[in-house]
Amino acid sequence: MKKIYDYHKDEQVSLYVLIKSAEEKLTRTNKPYLSFIFQDTSGEISANYWDAKPKDVETFKPGTVIKLEGKREEYKGNPQIRIKAIRLAKNDEPNNPELYVERAPINKDKMVEEFNHAVFDITNANMNRIVRFIMKKYQHDFFQSPAAKTNHHAFMGGLAYHTVSMLRIARALSEIYTELDISLLFSGVILHDVGKVVELSGPTATEYTLEGKLLGHIVMINEEIVKACNELKIDENNEDVLLLKHTLLAHHGELEYGSPVRPLIPEAEMIHYIDQIDAKMNMISSALKKTEPGEFSERIWAMNNRSFYKKTFAHPDSLSE
Amino acid sequence: MKKIYDYHKDEQVSLYVLIKSAEEKLTRTNKPYLSFIFQDTSGEISANYWDAKPKDVETFKPGTVIKLEGKREEYKGNPQIRIKAIRLAKNDEPNNPELYVERAPINKDKMVEEFNHAVFDITNANMNRIVRFIMKKYQHDFFQSPAAKTNHHAFMGGLAYHTVSMLRIARALSEIYTELDISLLFSGVILHDVGKVVELSGPTATEYTLEGKLLGHIVMINEEIVKACNELKIDENNEDVLLLKHTLLAHHGELEYGSPVRPLIPEAEMIHYIDQIDAKMNMISSALKKTEPGEFSERIWAMNNRSFYKKTFAHPDSLSE
Amino acid sequence: MKKIYDYHKDEQVSLYVLIKSAEEKLTRTNKPYLSFIFQDTSGEISANYWDAKPKDVETFKPGTVIKLEGKREEYKGNPQIRIKAIRLAKNDEPNNPELYVERAPINKDKMVEEFNHAVFDITNANMNRIVRFIMKKYQHDFFQSPAAKTNHHAFMGGLAYHTVSMLRIARALSEIYTELDISLLFSGVILHDVGKVVELSGPTATEYTLEGKLLGHIVMINEEIVKACNELKIDENNEDVLLLKHTLLAHHGELEYGSPVRPLIPEAEMIHYIDQIDAKMNMISSALKKTEPGEFSERIWAMNNRSFYKKTFAHPDSLSE
Amino acid sequence: MKKIYDYHKDEQVSLYVLIKSAEEKLTRTNKPYLSFIFQDTSGEISANYWDAKPKDVETFKPGTVIKLEGKREEYKGNPQIRIKAIRLAKNDEPNNPELYVERAPINKDKMVEEFNHAVFDITNANMNRIVRFIMKKYQHDFFQSPAAKTNHHAFMGGLAYHTVSMLRIARALSEIYTELDISLLFSGVILHDVGKVVELSGPTATEYTLEGKLLGHIVMINEEIVKACNELKIDENNEDVLLLKHTLLAHHGELEYGSPVRPLIPEAEMIHYIDQIDAKMNMISSALKKTEPGEFSERIWAMNNRSFYKKTFAHPDSLSE
Amino acid sequence: MKKIYDYHKDEQVSLYVLIKSAEEKLTRTNKPYLSFIFQDTSGEISANYWDAKPKDVETFKPGTVIKLEGKREEYKGNPQIRIKAIRLAKNDEPNNPELYVERAPINKDKMVEEFNHAVFDITNANMNRIVRFIMKKYQHDFFQSPAAKTNHHAFMGGLAYHTVSMLRIARALSEIYTELDISLLFSGVILHDVGKVVELSGPTATEYTLEGKLLGHIVMINEEIVKACNELKIDENNEDVLLLKHTLLAHHGELEYGSPVRPLIPEAEMIHYIDQIDAKMNMISSALKKTEPGEFSERIWAMNNRSFYKKTFAHPDSLSE
Amino acid sequence: MKKIYDYHKDEQVSLYVLIKSAEEKLTRTNKPYLSFIFQDTSGEISANYWDAKPKDVETFKPGTVIKLEGKREEYKGNPQIRIKAIRLAKNDEPNNPELYVERAPINKDKMVEEFNHAVFDITNANMNRIVRFIMKKYQHDFFQSPAAKTNHHAFMGGLAYHTVSMLRIARALSEIYTELDISLLFSGVILHDVGKVVELSGPTATEYTLEGKLLGHIVMINEEIVKACNELKIDENNEDVLLLKHTLLAHHGELEYGSPVRPLIPEAEMIHYIDQIDAKMNMISSALKKTEPGEFSERIWAMNNRSFYKKTFAHPDSLSE
Repeated sequence: MKKIYDYHKDEQVSLYVLIKSAEEKLTRTNKPYLSFIFQDTSGEISANYWDAKPKDVETFKPGTVIKLEGKREEYKGNPQIRIKAIRLAKNDEPNNPELYVERAPINKDKMVEEFNHAVFDITNANMNRIVRFIMKKYQHDFFQSPAAKTNHHAFMGGLAYHTVSMLRIARALSEIYTELDISLLFSGVILHDVGKVVELSGPTATEYTLEGKLLGHIVMINEEIVKACNELKIDENNEDVLLLKHTLLAHHGELEYGSPVRPLIPEAEMIHYIDQIDAKMNMISSALKKTEPGEFSERIWAMNNRSFYKKTFAHPDSLSE
Repeated sequence: MKKIYDYHKDEQVSLYVLIKSAEEKLTRTNKPYLSFIFQDTSGEISANYWDAKPKDVETFKPGTVIKLEGKREEYKGNPQIRIKAIRLAKNDEPNNPELYVERAPINKDKMVEEFNHAVFDITNANMNRIVRFIMKKYQHDFFQSPAAKTNHHAFMGGLAYHTVSMLRIARALSEIYTELDISLLFSGVILHDVGKVVELSGPTATEYTLEGKLLGHIVMINEEIVKACNELKIDENNEDVLLLKHTLLAHHGELEYGSPVRPLIPEAEMIHYIDQIDAKMNMISSALKKTEPGEFSERIWAMNNRSFYKKTFAHPDSLSE
Repeated sequence: MKKIYDYHKDEQVSLYVLIKSAEEKLTRTNKPYLSFIFQDTSGEISANYWDAKPKDVETFKPGTVIKLEGKREEYKGNPQIRIKAIRLAKNDEPNNPELYVERAPINKDKMVEEFNHAVFDITNANMNRIVRFIMKKYQHDFFQSPAAKTNHHAFMGGLAYHTVSMLRIARALSEIYTELDISLLFSGVILHDVGKVVELSGPTATEYTLEGKLLGHIVMINEEIVKACNELKIDENNEDVLLLKHTLLAHHGELEYGSPVRPLIPEAEMIHYIDQIDAKMNMISSALKKTEPGEFSERIWAMNNRSFYKKTFAHPDSLSE
Repeated sequence: MKKIYDYHKDEQVSLYVLIKSAEEKLTRTNKPYLSFIFQDTSGEISANYWDAKPKDVETFKPGTVIKLEGKREEYKGNPQIRIKAIRLAKNDEPNNPELYVERAPINKDKMVEEFNHAVFDITNANMNRIVRFIMKKYQHDFFQSPAAKTNHHAFMGGLAYHTVSMLRIARALSEIYTELDISLLFSGVILHDVGKVVELSGPTATEYTLEGKLLGHIVMINEEIVKACNELKIDENNEDVLLLKHTLLAHHGELEYGSPVRPLIPEAEMIHYIDQIDAKMNMISSALKKTEPGEFSERIWAMNNRSFYKKTFAHPDSLSE
Repeated sequence: MKKIYDYHKDEQVSLYVLIKSAEEKLTRTNKPYLSFIFQDTSGEISANYWDAKPKDVETFKPGTVIKLEGKREEYKGNPQIRIKAIRLAKNDEPNNPELYVERAPINKDKMVEEFNHAVFDITNANMNRIVRFIMKKYQHDFFQSPAAKTNHHAFMGGLAYHTVSMLRIARALSEIYTELDISLLFSGVILHDVGKVVELSGPTATEYTLEGKLLGHIVMINEEIVKACNELKIDENNEDVLLLKHTLLAHHGELEYGSPVRPLIPEAEMIHYIDQIDAKMNMISSALKKTEPGEFSERIWAMNNRSFYKKTFAHPDSLSE
Repeated sequence: MKKIYDYHKDEQVSLYVLIKSAEEKLTRTNKPYLSFIFQDTSGEISANYWDAKPKDVETFKPGTVIKLEGKREEYKGNPQIRIKAIRLAKNDEPNNPELYVERAPINKDKMVEEFNHAVFDITNANMNRIVRFIMKKYQHDFFQSPAAKTNHHAFMGGLAYHTVSMLRIARALSEIYTELDISLLFSGVILHDVGKVVELSGPTATEYTLEGKLLGHIVMINEEIVKACNELKIDENNEDVLLLKHTLLAHHGELEYGSPVRPLIPEAEMIHYIDQIDAKMNMISSALKKTEPGEFSERIWAMNNRSFYKKTFAHPDSLSE
């Protein structure tokens, strides 16, 4: 079935969408209308429903699926829908809200498997125990949480998916640079953003929590290690624990990006780059998905406001191997 | 008795000094000599002892007090002593090394008293208990430690003295800005640099410890609060504990100075400024102590390499009150 | 009586306010309306008065006090009032516009007294004469002027109040750092922003004057000293005059903040920090006044766009002394 | 056989080394001496040969192998050798200079094979032809050239080795991010630093050429593409050629690092990161090779002057796969 | 005849203008209107035409000249026209669109003459041939193209006019600094922005081309030189060709402004300054043209957002010579 | 006669030079020697005179001319002279010290004439009177003073020569940009650096004065205008005086370069650029004078440490006109 961003500008639209938000507003001349954000797995789009009746406000609540007829337009450079008609989706129609939410492109079981594989390769006993202790504690939320509020992997399961992608790169790099300590590299990747489980408020309507704003996820994961060592009777002064802490504290790479120390061991430096690569590929790909070939994407604020070009020629399917 | 920096350039020198360091070296043409750093409470100065005999190397060890005859000169803009004669200080002479080491200008008992006064004013129960727990744990080292390796208050007891001066400013500001929370302000000031007790190796030949380099004193004090709450059964999620942590994490003011978060409550912003004021006054005063009136001081690296002017006219003794 | 910011979002509003500005506008469809900014001592708020008749335009002029009935709402994140009814305040109601304007929290007489106390402590004869000469010249405007156009102390008497607060900090610091020259410190504080009397257009609808934009208040106060010395037959080449000039020129601390020289004497460095402390405390306090406990304030542009947190627990009333 | 950096400080040294440079100098008192830099595959070290006779100057020329007896010392924090005796290596001793020069850890044939494999995967016809044309033209020098004058891979064959490592990372990333165009990614990696063949003067005593300083290797490779298209009758206006040019021009990532444009397609962004990862891992590994476990390395100028920590615990041999 | 910016705010307007753009839009309540931008040689201004009929949309196309009656107003600080009546210009009225487009203040013949004069002074044979080859190739577009999309000389012929002004400054400087190489200086000036002919899409509705965005005009002119040398059989390795390339590559002065190398010969440094002077004078003059004496201009984004003051006193007509 | 920098490295030297400075020093092993700086109009060079006798110290005083035999060498990249023999210049030899000092390449009379011509073109009465008043006051020192301590025009008469060159550029620009106010432009150029007469200590052994360090030449010239207006009874509030002040205050272009305000009128912006052009051309030319064709100059600290290339081909003699 066609999705929101499969339609081009000025095309007639007819599809099922989820109401992400519905705000009751007044025009300057005091007439009520509903300001919607609709959503499906291709993205989000806004729409105004003029002359909304009180009953409409009752009916079209956030979290319900509707059938939408209208036209895709543009208002001040942003796409929007001009509504012709809307009605609730019926029982024999695809009315499960979960179908319309973006989520990680691989399922949780596959991700769990990859994590287990990585944990198996952490042969350093202290790191292995700490990683398993913390992951068990935050298991549920970790697989729900987005990786960020808006910039990258901002969808349900985004944090786990981001971490899995980073593990794949880490595995490849550890084969190229055999001097890297695998325990440290994999432990660092797995734990680097676990603090975001508490820093962010969860997968929907994601906001920073008070603790998130006042401490930040980098300090929070450090606190988790202190507590894990305390529970597991691991001496925090061991060099391996100290280096693991350092790797997590340093993973933003520079003080001005919020790391209280800069990377001083090779594994910390590498994790910083792996994190950058995955975050930026995700941002570019998301932007290009909504872009026509031969055009430039919307500007990506977190990448110096650059807009990226989508090429018109196809790329080959696979490698020679 | 006249001290090192009471002598002017090209003046004949005759005084007792402590040998801070004594390194055996060779000239380019392979002749042995001793490279000294001498010290008294007015500062440090270097000197070379040419044609040092093996016996001299035995005799003039770091930590011993000597009688020095020579001339104060300058070499490439830095003061140094040209040695005429040196001998060990005798028993009836001031040969106690402690007499030659810079220390805080007020004694420990007076400082302890000021701390107790401040702790008394911390009426918030959680903060009061946390402050007392941590201060008790590090009490001994806290009153020994310098406040920094080189920049400011780099002497035995410097950390405690720096903290006491900051408490005095904090007390004054809390009377001017009555909206400030005194418990938070005083707790923040007392604890802000306690992590330096572990970050630095101690009052003599101060270096950064491995933990100091890889974590930094800001993260370390945060860990101490986590541990204190655990010991004292205080819930870390209480807002007062959270704000205390934030105040400590934010006290460097900007991310690029090593704080993982910027100040987001007024007490955190104020502590940052109080810290700056005391550190900078100490650096300027130290530099001006070694400067003649009407001259500019040596350059202060940590203050954008500025050199400060020492005025020639006297300043009045006291305020009208 | 309740004030504008005592009302919460979506609450019914009934109170007296001053019309700060009233602009006649047209909707996109050509209907006239009045765009108001109302004001009382708790702050300012905007409101639109739809279908304004010509008589309304006549009646509701800036500078008049009205009785306002309506509702406090939010439009794009900013508070505004939806007007139900407005009428002019009557004679037996609080219709004196001066009651609604923010002003310094201590009165002019008290401020004058503090200034006189400080001037008394300037024992250096040249500085004392220069300070008194300039303060006499600008006395009237000085106690009227705001300290800035928008950032901090942007209210009638704000400049004098800012200066008085700085004098209090200066007095406290001069007791802690007895090496500071009191004459220089107090003279510098008193004169540092006097140039703003000419740089800014006055206490209402404050703008930069042409002279203010093209020269700036730092250069202007330097000119005042040149003129004062000329009038008072003081030799400008005296070191005390030179240092006073330097202190004023350097008080912004860094070239990029508009000081043509950086501080090169301790008093100049300290005045820079005192100025920072008072400006920032004022900005934070103003923002937090409009914020509910447990919420973050509006962003403060002049403080790197940070928004500050208002804590929920009370703070103790006073110090132990 | 033991190498230079297998000896510790103050150890007696007895080994064969290559004379990298030998400069005749005079002491301040006019006595001639030879200032050597010795070299083997573990690195370089300096040494002074006092009282050098004219015959010595004749004998100990750069490029000859000698037997060296002496002591490893430190002078101002840098390692140096105090020479006891030197003589030319004899015919039955390892006197081939090539044995002492650092080179890529894999041999040229293996590297050529990896390049061929990658070129095979460039299925875009224009890119494939351009890559082969340019590589054929610079084949010889490409496998000789260092990748930089001093910072990273500064040894014979360093440029090819750096490029091969990057191809390995590129291959791994293209499997993780299947949206990347393999032809563009691999062509970009292979060509990105070919301009250095002309920018740098060659594998020994590497300097920037005049053309290198005035144009830079980024502009030079762009010129090569223009010329290749001209020879091969490929229309430069084809989008694939344009994107290939862009990828090469943008590979330094930011204008301030010398790219005239910033990356605007995902392949260009990725190549920038791959380049960074390989350059930095090489710099860190080189520095740590000369560092004792538990110590910090020399400062790395091109990495913000950081010095890296060498951990004391071993790392596991291999991954689970 | 009076032009748009000869009218003051709130004045009745009656004049001929060109429709630069006409966009059909809907009000929030679904009523169609036309959003115009009108233009004459004094500048551009926007206007909305409410209740536009389908026939109006047909009639008032971009590129047609109309007679406009209305009022000059301001909307959010920007000037706009409130339309009273519009009609097409008649045949006996000034209805030639070219009359309303800003263009270079001197005509093409005069500019060609100045170019020829400059080329005559390029006595270096290689440079002379290269300059003539490239100028011939782009002759037509060069005299049409603007010098930039928005910032400076953004009008038909702007590129040629900017270059002519720079030649005049270059000529003056070459008389003051006789050590400058005239061939290099004049060739550099003439060619420095020729790449903009391809980088920008042309004189109307100017946009960056794809090639312009992905390569930039600095790289493009370098490519032109490579091609010219190939055609003209000039050896690119000649020092004069190399220096000419360098001059063009370096003319933005700093890496962060897009030059891949910084100026390393005096002629390159001078051309950078000449370019700056002419671009900035043009921006300031354009802004001041729309400003009343005694007022500040609109902010100029490309000059750190400064707004410039227009003085009220006249300036003398001419120099004494 | 051949000058210092006419000799190449390792060439035998025989010429007359002026002793600029002669410092008595001791070798590390306590032997006296004389450390000279010699000078002629081609530049300065250092030389050590070993085993200096007390009589030598008496004879070879700074300010005397000597006959020097020796060899031009290099020590750590800097040129120096190895002395073979020195003796005082005799009466029939060129022993006038003035012959060896660098000075402006045009004589004072010619410069005075150019100034008079420029002043004649300042038709604005206030500016004309102010310029003449200040120039008369500082006339003598103005034609003696260097334009800077080290960076550019650091020779006797350098300030006047720098100003004359700027006047020539200003005259040329005023013909190209006829909208510039000639009175303002010429007055600004003439006065812009007059404050340096007091900021710097004079033409020999130039240092910053105390006033220069604490106020800076930008503030000083502003004070001079205040005093001139007072003497001449010119109302400082006149717009022309205000703009003249602004032009001088803003001539460093940016706050971080020490201007308390940025240029807000076109004349101020232009003077900033004219100043830059002349200062940089002088720095580059000075560096290239000491450089062989085909080589790069010493690094120029004030130009981002760049070193400039000296081309090998000749430049044509003159323009076609």
